Amino acid sequence: MPDEVLNNISHRRYNPLTGSWLLVSPHRTKRPWQGAQETPSKNTLPEYDPKCYLCPGNKRAQGDNNPHYKNTFAFVNDYSAVKEEQQDYHPETNKNDVASLLLQARPVTGRCYVLTFSAKHDTTLADMTAEEIVPVINTWTRIYATHLSPSHPLKEQAKHVLETIPQNPDGEVEPPKHQLKNMQIFENKGAAMGCSNPHPHCQIWTTSTLPEEPGKELVNMGTYKRDNGRHLLGDYVKLELEKKERVVWQNDSFVVVCPWWALWPFEVLIISKRHVRALVDLDDKERLHFAEAVQEVARRYDNLFETNFPYSSGIHQAPLDCTEEEAETSWFHMHFYPPLLRSATVKKFLVGYELMAEPQRDITPEQAAAKLRDCGGELYRKSLE
Amino acid sequence: MPDEVLNNISHRRYNPLTGSWLLVSPHRTKRPWQGAQETPSKNTLPEYDPKCYLCPGNKRAQGDNNPHYKNTFAFVNDYSAVKEEQQDYHPETNKNDVASLLLQARPVTGRCYVLTFSAKHDTTLADMTAEEIVPVINTWTRIYATHLSPSHPLKEQAKHVLETIPQNPDGEVEPPKHQLKNMQIFENKGAAMGCSNPHPHCQIWTTSTLPEEPGKELVNMGTYKRDNGRHLLGDYVKLELEKKERVVWQNDSFVVVCPWWALWPFEVLIISKRHVRALVDLDDKERLHFAEAVQEVARRYDNLFETNFPYSSGIHQAPLDCTEEEAETSWFHMHFYPPLLRSATVKKFLVGYELMAEPQRDITPEQAAAKLRDCGGELYRKSLE
Ligand SMILES: O=P(O)(O)O[C@H]1O[C@H](CO)[C@@H](O)[C@H](O)[C@H]1O
Ligand SMILES: O=P(O)(O)O[C@H]1O[C@H](CO)[C@@H](O)[C@H](O)[C@H]1O
Repeated sequence: MPDEVLNNISHRRYNPLTGSWLLVSPHRTKRPWQGAQETPSKNTLPEYDPKCYLCPGNKRAQGDNNPHYKNTFAFVNDYSAVKEEQQDYHPETNKNDVASLLLQARPVTGRCYVLTFSAKHDTTLADMTAEEIVPVINTWTRIYATHLSPSHPLKEQAKHVLETIPQNPDGEVEPPKHQLKNMQIFENKGAAMGCSNPHPHCQIWTTSTLPEEPGKELVNMGTYKRDNGRHLLGDYVKLELEKKERVVWQNDSFVVVCPWWALWPFEVLIISKRHVRALVDLDDKERLHFAEAVQEVARRYDNLFETNFPYSSGIHQAPLDCTEEEAETSWFHMHFYPPLLRSATVKKFLVGYELMAEPQRDITPEQAAAKLRDCGGELYRKSLE
Repeated sequence: MPDEVLNNISHRRYNPLTGSWLLVSPHRTKRPWQGAQETPSKNTLPEYDPKCYLCPGNKRAQGDNNPHYKNTFAFVNDYSAVKEEQQDYHPETNKNDVASLLLQARPVTGRCYVLTFSAKHDTTLADMTAEEIVPVINTWTRIYATHLSPSHPLKEQAKHVLETIPQNPDGEVEPPKHQLKNMQIFENKGAAMGCSNPHPHCQIWTTSTLPEEPGKELVNMGTYKRDNGRHLLGDYVKLELEKKERVVWQNDSFVVVCPWWALWPFEVLIISKRHVRALVDLDDKERLHFAEAVQEVARRYDNLFETNFPYSSGIHQAPLDCTEEEAETSWFHMHFYPPLLRSATVKKFLVGYELMAEPQRDITPEQAAAKLRDCGGELYRKSLE
């Protein structure tokens, strides 16, 4: 391996998806740690919690009652970050006016959902089987399809999934009132990642604007495609399957890697092997394969430090409203950003230098991948039951 | 105020320093919080801690002894993220090779310092007077001057400060072995910001490369200057002094604002009123004025929630090695990024949506500025003594 030296020296790596560099200091984990320690999360939750606003049948903050749902249940967030209707705002923009250069604002509308993964308060994706995760992926797919613009290049695929994936018997979401631009599916898991309720769930924020991160990725994937005639993530998947050192796991449809440019200690990326533009491109078998990949990541994370591993995860795919070229440029993938570094209680803080100068990590992605490859097998808590 | 509506609607604001947008959802603080609570930091530290590796006279991790220093003391970090000497690495780059496009790495060398603010283990910038903070600023200035490249446009200014600011009687840092590109001064304060030792200190990382954040700022300030013939931050200071609603505090040389594009709940920016390119441009009076500004921010932060307020702060200024044009483009400023949102124990988490899609904040910078304006006066703990 020509890059062996990178295990011993400080270096920068380039993230081609965002077009930015990060600092890698492999030797730095040797320093002693006297700072904050996380409380290892105990698994002493009840299967049903009468005070949880996500459990089946319970009352929510604004008074609505959850149905007695079986698997997943989606509802509009009672405290949404964006709303479908709000006061108008038309900033005056005058190119010669300093305020219109330096005090720029634009309105954003949209709809935010909360989606439970299971009726059980005390489970997580790591505890669920791939088959139990399929309904979650089906719901993501139906919600994405329901929000697609009428002229979207993937409209036929959306129609197909709405006809073939069974409706959720516990309720479906409504089409949006106004066409929206983007849908961000994400999960915050664990108190360390700002999660305010342990009931397994994710959020889906749809917005009238294309947010920064997927926007940057689209631009960079587009440039790569124009320059090289091939897909950035297509090339990357091939390269990683050849090199193997950053591959954590794979099945026929997806590969899990610690990307070359990973910032978070045990960051991984699930990438589709073939060119999938969005959830609606996946067939039945691929949705099961995707569920398997998600399950593998969640279980390996928990096994790594024998803890309920915190992370934020999110899916990037074609925007809800986009051109043929933008849809074609999109390549389905899912990021996992976990903060733990050395144990169940020691976090990697992305703070002073990282915020003011440049993101910095302490172990190499290759070292992280080797550890995650080694902790497959049964979920550690199974044998404790 | 024409922008009153922005207090009630979700909107994006533009950060002209980084060239990126963030989402503002002013109504969102109304949601209940069931997530993690920080432990309010108690001030029960001793003035001298025999186990602290920063206290005067104590032994450090690698066996060196600290001198019995009086004010500040700088030493090379025993666990530096970058080192001056390391194995060579010359990646082969071949434009037609996928690996040289997607697996890019570059070596980084440099030197990392730790700098104590005071001999007292139990003090903070908020407890110190502006006069007591001046030695810190003097040390920053001397270290910056010592690392400046021989052909630097500010070389004369550097010579002047090295002749006029008294040497630190407890030891000075050595000039670097190889010329470096950038110096990042930053402080992580509080366990919530990854600080592993409460003894008041900052870090200074010098590197052979220009990191992402100052790099982006230089590009954006340069473009603004070429387009408008004036300085971005010069225009911005004037605008904020006219508008007043985001100004927290000012003296003759510096203004403290919650910037229009603030991401962290109580983020502030200290900006020089005149065109200062780097620390070495400041005269004696301005260094005192800068110390006053830092003191005001630290004290108001602690007063806001009557706690030892955590934050990361950092100074941006001209790189150590740069062209005449880059030095001219630079405008001295200091960022403060504090994570607390609603109280001493409730943090704002920048997690799922923020990491996967776009940074998001819950109160407006104008609301934050109003609160910080109102909590000047004596440090709250003085009256508890
Ligand atoms: O150097 P320290 O204080 O041990 O470490 C702290 O600051 C560094 C620079 O921001 C970070 O990389 C570390 O994650 C953080 O814990
Ligand atoms: O919506 P929640 O779970 O209450 O809130 C959590 O996720 C949001 C989206 O990433 C963040 O803005 C919040 O800071 C975080 O606490």
